[in-house]
Amino acid sequence: MKEKVLLAYSGGLDTSCILLWLLEKGYEVVCLIADVGQDEDFEVARKKALKIGASEVVVAQVKQDFVVNYIYPAVSMGLLYERRYLLGTSLARPCISAALVECAKARGIKCISHGATGKGNDQVRFELSAYALYPEIQVIAPWRIVEFCERFQGREDLLAYAQANGIAVEATPKAPWSMDANFMHISYESGILEDPNVIAPESLYKMTKGAALWPDKPTILEIEFIKGLPVSMTNATDKTKSKDPVEILEFLNRIGGDHGVGRIDIVENRFVGLKSRGVYETPGVKILYEAHLDLELVCLDREVFRLKSYLSDRMADFVYNGFWFSPEASYSRKCLQESQENVSGTVTMEIFKGNARPIARRAVRGLYNEELVSMNVHGGYTPASAGGFIEIHSIRLKEFKKAFGTFK
Amino acid sequence: MKEKVLLAYSGGLDTSCILLWLLEKGYEVVCLIADVGQDEDFEVARKKALKIGASEVVVAQVKQDFVVNYIYPAVSMGLLYERRYLLGTSLARPCISAALVECAKARGIKCISHGATGKGNDQVRFELSAYALYPEIQVIAPWRIVEFCERFQGREDLLAYAQANGIAVEATPKAPWSMDANFMHISYESGILEDPNVIAPESLYKMTKGAALWPDKPTILEIEFIKGLPVSMTNATDKTKSKDPVEILEFLNRIGGDHGVGRIDIVENRFVGLKSRGVYETPGVKILYEAHLDLELVCLDREVFRLKSYLSDRMADFVYNGFWFSPEASYSRKCLQESQENVSGTVTMEIFKGNARPIARRAVRGLYNEELVSMNVHGGYTPASAGGFIEIHSIRLKEFKKAFGTFK
Amino acid sequence: MKEKVLLAYSGGLDTSCILLWLLEKGYEVVCLIADVGQDEDFEVARKKALKIGASEVVVAQVKQDFVVNYIYPAVSMGLLYERRYLLGTSLARPCISAALVECAKARGIKCISHGATGKGNDQVRFELSAYALYPEIQVIAPWRIVEFCERFQGREDLLAYAQANGIAVEATPKAPWSMDANFMHISYESGILEDPNVIAPESLYKMTKGAALWPDKPTILEIEFIKGLPVSMTNATDKTKSKDPVEILEFLNRIGGDHGVGRIDIVENRFVGLKSRGVYETPGVKILYEAHLDLELVCLDREVFRLKSYLSDRMADFVYNGFWFSPEASYSRKCLQESQENVSGTVTMEIFKGNARPIARRAVRGLYNEELVSMNVHGGYTPASAGGFIEIHSIRLKEFKKAFGTFK
Amino acid sequence: MKEKVLLAYSGGLDTSCILLWLLEKGYEVVCLIADVGQDEDFEVARKKALKIGASEVVVAQVKQDFVVNYIYPAVSMGLLYERRYLLGTSLARPCISAALVECAKARGIKCISHGATGKGNDQVRFELSAYALYPEIQVIAPWRIVEFCERFQGREDLLAYAQANGIAVEATPKAPWSMDANFMHISYESGILEDPNVIAPESLYKMTKGAALWPDKPTILEIEFIKGLPVSMTNATDKTKSKDPVEILEFLNRIGGDHGVGRIDIVENRFVGLKSRGVYETPGVKILYEAHLDLELVCLDREVFRLKSYLSDRMADFVYNGFWFSPEASYSRKCLQESQENVSGTVTMEIFKGNARPIARRAVRGLYNEELVSMNVHGGYTPASAGGFIEIHSIRLKEFKKAFGTFK
Repeated sequence: MKEKVLLAYSGGLDTSCILLWLLEKGYEVVCLIADVGQDEDFEVARKKALKIGASEVVVAQVKQDFVVNYIYPAVSMGLLYERRYLLGTSLARPCISAALVECAKARGIKCISHGATGKGNDQVRFELSAYALYPEIQVIAPWRIVEFCERFQGREDLLAYAQANGIAVEATPKAPWSMDANFMHISYESGILEDPNVIAPESLYKMTKGAALWPDKPTILEIEFIKGLPVSMTNATDKTKSKDPVEILEFLNRIGGDHGVGRIDIVENRFVGLKSRGVYETPGVKILYEAHLDLELVCLDREVFRLKSYLSDRMADFVYNGFWFSPEASYSRKCLQESQENVSGTVTMEIFKGNARPIARRAVRGLYNEELVSMNVHGGYTPASAGGFIEIHSIRLKEFKKAFGTFK
Repeated sequence: MKEKVLLAYSGGLDTSCILLWLLEKGYEVVCLIADVGQDEDFEVARKKALKIGASEVVVAQVKQDFVVNYIYPAVSMGLLYERRYLLGTSLARPCISAALVECAKARGIKCISHGATGKGNDQVRFELSAYALYPEIQVIAPWRIVEFCERFQGREDLLAYAQANGIAVEATPKAPWSMDANFMHISYESGILEDPNVIAPESLYKMTKGAALWPDKPTILEIEFIKGLPVSMTNATDKTKSKDPVEILEFLNRIGGDHGVGRIDIVENRFVGLKSRGVYETPGVKILYEAHLDLELVCLDREVFRLKSYLSDRMADFVYNGFWFSPEASYSRKCLQESQENVSGTVTMEIFKGNARPIARRAVRGLYNEELVSMNVHGGYTPASAGGFIEIHSIRLKEFKKAFGTFK
Repeated sequence: MKEKVLLAYSGGLDTSCILLWLLEKGYEVVCLIADVGQDEDFEVARKKALKIGASEVVVAQVKQDFVVNYIYPAVSMGLLYERRYLLGTSLARPCISAALVECAKARGIKCISHGATGKGNDQVRFELSAYALYPEIQVIAPWRIVEFCERFQGREDLLAYAQANGIAVEATPKAPWSMDANFMHISYESGILEDPNVIAPESLYKMTKGAALWPDKPTILEIEFIKGLPVSMTNATDKTKSKDPVEILEFLNRIGGDHGVGRIDIVENRFVGLKSRGVYETPGVKILYEAHLDLELVCLDREVFRLKSYLSDRMADFVYNGFWFSPEASYSRKCLQESQENVSGTVTMEIFKGNARPIARRAVRGLYNEELVSMNVHGGYTPASAGGFIEIHSIRLKEFKKAFGTFK
Repeated sequence: MKEKVLLAYSGGLDTSCILLWLLEKGYEVVCLIADVGQDEDFEVARKKALKIGASEVVVAQVKQDFVVNYIYPAVSMGLLYERRYLLGTSLARPCISAALVECAKARGIKCISHGATGKGNDQVRFELSAYALYPEIQVIAPWRIVEFCERFQGREDLLAYAQANGIAVEATPKAPWSMDANFMHISYESGILEDPNVIAPESLYKMTKGAALWPDKPTILEIEFIKGLPVSMTNATDKTKSKDPVEILEFLNRIGGDHGVGRIDIVENRFVGLKSRGVYETPGVKILYEAHLDLELVCLDREVFRLKSYLSDRMADFVYNGFWFSPEASYSRKCLQESQENVSGTVTMEIFKGNARPIARRAVRGLYNEELVSMNVHGGYTPASAGGFIEIHSIRLKEFKKAFGTFK
């Protein structure tokens, strides 16, 4: 009896060739196609895998899971890698891995395989997630196997292999970069983008429109959060409203996309120690991120916000590095969730020409006290006390100046 | 002989009334007007102070000092308060205080006064800076003195006092908010902005144009940094170039202003414990901030960036809270400056319709290694090693799963 | 009708004089004596207060509360101020304040008073706690009132005032330092200790014996924790065992005291900006602190320990500075408590001649895996993987070396 | 021509067998014995290696280098891993690696080898240091090579191999644990210590005496630091004084050893993800660590100490994990060194019965101001200001209480 392998299958050239190669190696291969909201024909992919020789093809419907258990928690935790990247790929990987593990366990499969490269983050994310959830699992990562790498030294070799074995290949020429899409974002890297001084062409972007197509009027959105999680979205411009998690993000992706919101072009640090250049578009979640941050500053105490920000930065690293399922992420998640207890309210966002700006906000129960801060009323504040406050705070400074003479 | 007081004078209603009140109280008053690049007629203000009764009026030309010793260091340190505010006012205060202290020391004056309110941050920033640089200094803060506050309970009282004493008052009605301008930014607060759910009107903004006036073509800028500091700016669109620190920021403010770059509308935490709502426009420095961050990720090692980011967040708090001159800021400044040793290179920025986006970059000597990261060449990387890397990293996760069963 | 004041009364000279002075000022004074486990005759103090003129004297029995809700949580959170101080006084203050607030609320009293000095931390701790729990409360702090300070410029003035008004004064001459005792520790400061280069005399210590009296045999203790909290203590030497929270600490104080455990002599940073010198003895909690830390390293994942340690350091500052009742302490407490979920087990401590050393430990469910770490068996570990682990980790270092040439 | 390998040789059974095995594999082997101050006969080891077949044996005299460039900087940086471990082994490894690299480069050797196991930290420390300093270096780690591990499955196999090949073997039976010694400390692990609940026997300790041998009188030491580095040590008891770096530590090791100072018994987290149990004795550096920390609190501003402590904790991790030569350690080192600019003064230490306690201290220029903190004189402090200080700090707490009702 053949050993069974569960392959994370996308329908593309790489994983199709890997499927075939695994079959050649004598494995029985079950394919799992994860629907994390990417724009793809899953039925076509399913048939393709079966035709190549997969013994079974599972299409895992994890879009809802992805939104509810990964994307929205990330928004509520305020995750931002290296101050800019919203972690669209990093969040999808553990979601897909969880589906792989569930599928493998249900079928008694002890080995998984994937098409992630040996230089990237995704191999780490897939495998750490799988090891965490299923410590006994084995992994076959062809792009780290010398034999495989020597046989397939470039795209040409894969194409030749595919054609020689009757695997359908897309007629349209491949873009000179690679791309990874899901319901949250599309990322672009490699190819011409490998030179960080080459400007990414406008034609690259798929989720967000270019300036020429931007509407001439802003869209005004009211986004409501309860305990840090988005629960409803009202388009103040056309009065449409949505309360379904998936639908909210669908709307935000569309509106943000129309206005060109959420593009970044960055050099980032991979966990394996390389610097890489990535271009990302994350229209909907960029809007949610900004709205959530705005509301947090109204609802959270100053010092709690600082503690929470520290944990959030650490968590962003954990997630980027593939440790979504880990003791530290588990702990951080609980702490960050605890911080959101009072983050409830509504933020008004102006979405316009690439910008997503909070312009007004109201908290259910916040710490903003209009009377207290007002220039016109006392609100219980005794200005004279500030003199003592400053004086006591100045003691350290005066002592230092007297002892060491300079702040240079 | 009367005691001398040095008053930080702006030419506006508040400090004019304070000047008169100090004279009434029997002080001799020297006025210092600090030119930190705000758009104002300093000669008019000078004459006004003399007319009211100042014994001397000093116009301190600190714009260059502000740019070179406060703004650009802040850019190189990556200072951002509560993830959004670029600290335009916070940086100007210690610069003005240093001018006050220098002026006071030169004249043997032992007491300074200012018009900052008792609920705000600026009183703290002015005074902590002054105490740090001149520990023996005395401070008169009228807005914290009960007698003064009771006499002047609102703008009406100040106006009446001014008119009764022949102090010229602006004919145009005051905007329903207060504003503070310098070469880096303009801040708006109070008045109608005190309700954080009221949208700030477009007419409020002075440095940045509204969408209706935005150009239809992007401006492409090449900004060069050496050791983290901006040293030149080339407008790739019209080929103009500047190398003078003040001129660079002037250009960036104009271009950023034309494209509406750098507006934020936030609720923030004041050092005195209140939450306040502020609207800011910081066109030029927003561009510099984004360009600098982009370059840092190319030049800095991953872990150095993390250490530096931690210090940068702490430093932003120090500066916001008025501790620019303090042991901790002094120490952080040295550490942050040390981190910039290798941050040299050029970033290409697209300035367009409210956005300032890095789109390309080249470092003088960076850690980005195109060969190493390339999908097409090995560049010395052994993919097989990544398997061991992942496996060893998975040990903790597997052990935790075995011991405690879940990552919930 | 006179205004009522609730005075935190100790029975000593200072608060006795304050009581009298408040009466003189026309207040009706209720005294609260908090029993936080200090060695004192509360009945004598009660009668003394009544004799001076208190309208009521409440002896608040908060020793159990102190142990269960302050000391043990502090142990489980691993609180250590500036790497050395176990926070004995800092923890008692909010406990006393909570008793004051409860007492005041029950009696409709709107004003509290205390004898803490104007240069110290305790005024801050008392008052911030009281303001937090009872925002409308008023505070009378005589040692900050000019009139009071001028009248009582030193101990002599207080003695004279006491004697003139028939207040009993201790016959024994006061030690040349001040001291504050509770069930957790005794602190000593001021007087001859103000010169940090003067060695504290052996006679100063009350809870811990000097070397001449130390037993010649160690005491071996087994301390059991559940979820980070001490739940039982077994004296392996004499087989006594205790499970009562107060009794456990009583035993540990006695054993630690006999062996001279837990003395420190430090210069510390007060919240008001001064450096002060303090001598502390904390026999029982020093033992608990070391035992708990030992167990944590067995039970907590490495990265969770780091996150927890960061929060613990922050929390120690909060507590020292008087913010036990604050949003940030509340949040930190929850996060730190969350970290203790798996910290259960037993630590064997050797208590001997000033030392409290963990020498063995067993966790209920820990992450220590004897097979995995063994030099003799594989335990599922693949040594070859470590090569890949190291190689991938070396990439950043090699790149840095190639780019910048040095690690100096 | 044979390929040359440079082997880190200790003279013990493991590296002797590795030497022979490398020769069998066809390499020419140069041995490097690093004198990091361990108590060993280097001449015997040299001859042994030559006899086995080494083509050259280099005894690298790095004790002075170890003290001056690793141990004392670690003291001045305050390095302490997981709050307890002074990093004695972690510091020696990069020192030895630097010697290996220097030796290899001088001889044109491109490959190094060592006897560190595949489960431990030392392989990582040796190799990361070597890769960092000499990116082109190759590493042969026999304990990670399947063939080697299968051939030598335990100590018996090594002994048999040694005896069969005429390698001298110690007559005395090996202790049931492994040990690693250098001038700073001795570490013990493995064998019977693998059960963390087994108490380490008194006979294990080599550098520190047991209680039965402890002197009955304390030794009082005055330790002088300049810019954070120990520069002299005076034994106040016998008046001896030393100013030589190596001699100072020699003295401290002897005195600390006599008094049994610096023993710890801990479970720690290895970088490779395992928890291990280690017993350490570090007599001299424990004294220096405590003295230095004491002085720092006198010399450093409160907030600088906090920043420095954060960096110190991070640096301890870097060093433990093998990143002494890395961008992050290089950066941290500079920042931490910067923090020591004013850490100059003398600390009086009482060394007695396992304890090393600071009991007095004087700074050259510190921030301790006896007048300011005194209970008897004002020293320029205005107690009334503390009221304002507290009141303003209470604002956040009151607002939180009003909004959310509880600090639970």
